[in-house]
Amino acid sequence: MPHIDLGNDQPGIRSLFFYRPETAAPLCDLVEVLLRGPSTLERWERELIATRVSGLNECRYCTTTHAAYACEQAPAQTGLDLVRSDVIAVPASVGADILAAPLSAKLRALLAVAEAVQKSGKAVTPELVEAARAQGATDLELHDTVLIAAAFCMYNRYVDGLATVAPEDPANYTARAALQAEHGYLPVVEAALAHQAGRD
Amino acid sequence: MPHIDLGNDQPGIRSLFFYRPETAAPLCDLVEVLLRGPSTLERWERELIATRVSGLNECRYCTTTHAAYACEQAPAQTGLDLVRSDVIAVPASVGADILAAPLSAKLRALLAVAEAVQKSGKAVTPELVEAARAQGATDLELHDTVLIAAAFCMYNRYVDGLATVAPEDPANYTARAALQAEHGYLPVVEAALAHQAGRD
Repeated sequence: MPHIDLGNDQPGIRSLFFYRPETAAPLCDLVEVLLRGPSTLERWERELIATRVSGLNECRYCTTTHAAYACEQAPAQTGLDLVRSDVIAVPASVGADILAAPLSAKLRALLAVAEAVQKSGKAVTPELVEAARAQGATDLELHDTVLIAAAFCMYNRYVDGLATVAPEDPANYTARAALQAEHGYLPVVEAALAHQAGRD
Repeated sequence: MPHIDLGNDQPGIRSLFFYRPETAAPLCDLVEVLLRGPSTLERWERELIATRVSGLNECRYCTTTHAAYACEQAPAQTGLDLVRSDVIAVPASVGADILAAPLSAKLRALLAVAEAVQKSGKAVTPELVEAARAQGATDLELHDTVLIAAAFCMYNRYVDGLATVAPEDPANYTARAALQAEHGYLPVVEAALAHQAGRD
């Protein structure tokens, strides 16, 4: 049960967006730019970075949500199949599945940078940065990887710090993935504002 | 030296805003709503929460910057004097100074919630929430405290994960505080966009 009365029965971060649309707007603008905006990293690759960091933070809702978005958009040959009851139960276990997938050496090196950021900004060493560069990572890709990882250290703490509800059935997450892949992260802000208008 | 070529000589997070205005906009919108928007918490109280979390994350730039903003706006009777070389050297030491100040019991209880968020969202217990409520904290104040703490776990990782430069002279931080107290967090976005326009 959430720590505060959110006044809606949405799951996870959606319940917080509905509670406080004033902060939902910049939070959704940020993730839309980072995970879906123009980039030389594929959308599914960026979703995978978000998934990995959320797993390390043991955030069930964010790990499974972004795993579903990554799997929805990843090419079939990656064989990614991360939306499972055992991942919902132990979110950090998504890491082994990600490492087992046929990812590019560049994405692997960027995932290592993201894993460092999850610990602390200071854990990002020149060596980790150089290793990513050696696999072809650009400055902008490094920047965005650090900011995606840092941002999910925020979203994860926000979701769990207020004890929002994470559905236990994988179908809850896969059901939203196709719609999300098409429309992105901004429609929920409109829904939150409409909910607020009905409430006031 | 920053891990990537930022193309400007701004300090701390400002150098990242100038590098990537597309993400600067939502990042600044978020902190403007959280630390300066309408709230039953004073601006200096919210700055103090940001300062404390940044100290725990050992982020020199954010700790000293928000310490300067808190001190600029706090009533004189709090006696807050946090912008010092020893705090820049050991940011976590700001915690002892904050605890020694004459703060309300409510703010102390909210600081305890923020300290839990810094560790992990799951570290926020019903007991911490109830303790804050017993001192008069509202649901919205609890929500905003969790999100401020979570957001600074992002800003701190972003600033240090890319190894941005933190000035060592306290005067660099106090110099900006009066202007910031008047105009807030959004003018830097305009400056970043102007810098980008000149660069392209």
